[in-house]
Amino acid sequence: MKKIVILLIMLFTVCLSGASSVIAASEDAKELASWKEGPSRQAIVDFVRTVTDSKNKYFIPEHKRIAVFDNDGTLWCEKPVYPQFIFAIDRVKAVIEKRPELKEEAVFQAALDGDHDSLAKSGAEGIQKLIGATHGGMTAGNFQSIVSDWMESARHPRFKQPYNKCVYKPMLELLDYLRANGFRTFIVSGGGRDFMRPWTKETYGVDAEEVVGSSCHLEYRDGDVYRTEKIDFLNDGKEKPVGICRQIGIRPVAAFGNSDGDFEMLEWTKSGAGKGKSLCMIVHHTDAKREYAYDRASKVGHLERGLDHAAEAGWVIIDMQKDWSRIFPFED
Amino acid sequence: MKKIVILLIMLFTVCLSGASSVIAASEDAKELASWKEGPSRQAIVDFVRTVTDSKNKYFIPEHKRIAVFDNDGTLWCEKPVYPQFIFAIDRVKAVIEKRPELKEEAVFQAALDGDHDSLAKSGAEGIQKLIGATHGGMTAGNFQSIVSDWMESARHPRFKQPYNKCVYKPMLELLDYLRANGFRTFIVSGGGRDFMRPWTKETYGVDAEEVVGSSCHLEYRDGDVYRTEKIDFLNDGKEKPVGICRQIGIRPVAAFGNSDGDFEMLEWTKSGAGKGKSLCMIVHHTDAKREYAYDRASKVGHLERGLDHAAEAGWVIIDMQKDWSRIFPFED
Repeated sequence: MKKIVILLIMLFTVCLSGASSVIAASEDAKELASWKEGPSRQAIVDFVRTVTDSKNKYFIPEHKRIAVFDNDGTLWCEKPVYPQFIFAIDRVKAVIEKRPELKEEAVFQAALDGDHDSLAKSGAEGIQKLIGATHGGMTAGNFQSIVSDWMESARHPRFKQPYNKCVYKPMLELLDYLRANGFRTFIVSGGGRDFMRPWTKETYGVDAEEVVGSSCHLEYRDGDVYRTEKIDFLNDGKEKPVGICRQIGIRPVAAFGNSDGDFEMLEWTKSGAGKGKSLCMIVHHTDAKREYAYDRASKVGHLERGLDHAAEAGWVIIDMQKDWSRIFPFED
Repeated sequence: MKKIVILLIMLFTVCLSGASSVIAASEDAKELASWKEGPSRQAIVDFVRTVTDSKNKYFIPEHKRIAVFDNDGTLWCEKPVYPQFIFAIDRVKAVIEKRPELKEEAVFQAALDGDHDSLAKSGAEGIQKLIGATHGGMTAGNFQSIVSDWMESARHPRFKQPYNKCVYKPMLELLDYLRANGFRTFIVSGGGRDFMRPWTKETYGVDAEEVVGSSCHLEYRDGDVYRTEKIDFLNDGKEKPVGICRQIGIRPVAAFGNSDGDFEMLEWTKSGAGKGKSLCMIVHHTDAKREYAYDRASKVGHLERGLDHAAEAGWVIIDMQKDWSRIFPFED
């Protein structure tokens, strides 16, 4: 009888603690509705609870709550190819109309023909020419309109949605959850800063000045700011911490990426915390059915060093297939 | 009798309308306590009232309410010489201790001797060397600490106050007033971005990412971001609109400057408004007694094109002596 009583008390205690922890978790993170219970969700909730509790020794004051997010493959779908690359190819026709001599160059002809193999063969120099000619030669204001128009009309080849609807619902929830807890959220992407800014506020709640990205050289003449064809900053890999210093000026405490181009951003975020807390996460594309599955063998979103290094570094791998109950907002 | 009654009614009406306009003005701009009644104060209040009134045809939605402020001579005192230049000279001793060979160069010896004439003679190349050696060669984090320490210990030669206390009270009020009306406030200065960031939040309520300025080339190595001695952006004159595009990404509707280095920023702000409203103002240093009086003949804060162009362009000149009842917060 005594044994049965003890067993009942133990069972009751387990049930009670289980129930109370469920209540606490759901209270704390209602925003994270598309995140299944599991280590990724738990890591987020634990981190936010800890650093926002003023009595906790790991408390982080609000002005230091800086969270940085890669964009391609972390916030929106980057497959089958970076959306900005599709934008450049779509722009070639308009550019050739004004500058027909460009047709003589292989990379532009390949773009017109939609010949992706020849495009790939044109190498870094060819791609740079293509990006320069399609992104430069107009005022900063005109380029904003061009991007906005394209974003409204272009559709993702598989999902048949505008590209800025092919964003990850769980990551939108995470952005909201962090902001609700006093974080400021920034995009730090290898993509073009001015290609992102026209739509990040509406899509992610991220203001133009909170977008860090690659850029072309700008110049002021005839009373306005013009975009040149010269790329002056490639915000990828080792340049991501540099881009953060240039534009944000405060070392982040949370960083989210998905490819090896995010490695140094995560590394620098982690080491900046010293003995304090930080949250570094990698979105791992594991769901071929609902999205795409790729990592080490992929050119777009190549992920190898990050996977090998994550456990040792204390970075959390988000398994899209297991951790996310829903991927896109347009799913019902 | 009838005439007297009419006269009384007229007088009463005038008094009443006068009283009500005073009440309305003080209701609208309590924050502007150090601004005397006059055209400058009126221009600010009129602009803010107009563009924040959703029924007015000149209404500006909140996300477009971007206001940019020069720093040296617009928000803080730049005389007798730019505070950042004093910082550089103060740093020379620490630099020479580590690199005694620099003593052989005239510009460093002049700085050590406090010989301002020789410093001036060393020209742009010399000054660039001095800035490079005193601002580069450490991590971004270390430089923040160096600036913060200096700001705490250094004193303005005339006012005997820390430099970030020698800020203009009316401009602090203007920053608050604009923010209270849904504006975001940015600093766009020729001064060093990373020299300003450590103290702008506390001093002006302006976050690190809201500070646009000149900068040196940064590089990531050994897990941290290092400052090099190479200046990579001089945020002055024609580069101010460029700096705004790079970092803010939205064309401002209000701009405040004090020297010809702000000309293009004001010009671009004004022309961006098209037929809409903008507010462009120049702080004119006219008060030798309470601060300094200078414009066309001064090297520091040189103002000539701005004065000649203001009336035609519709820019408002702030007369420090006439428009400001109080200049510094430390005055009683």
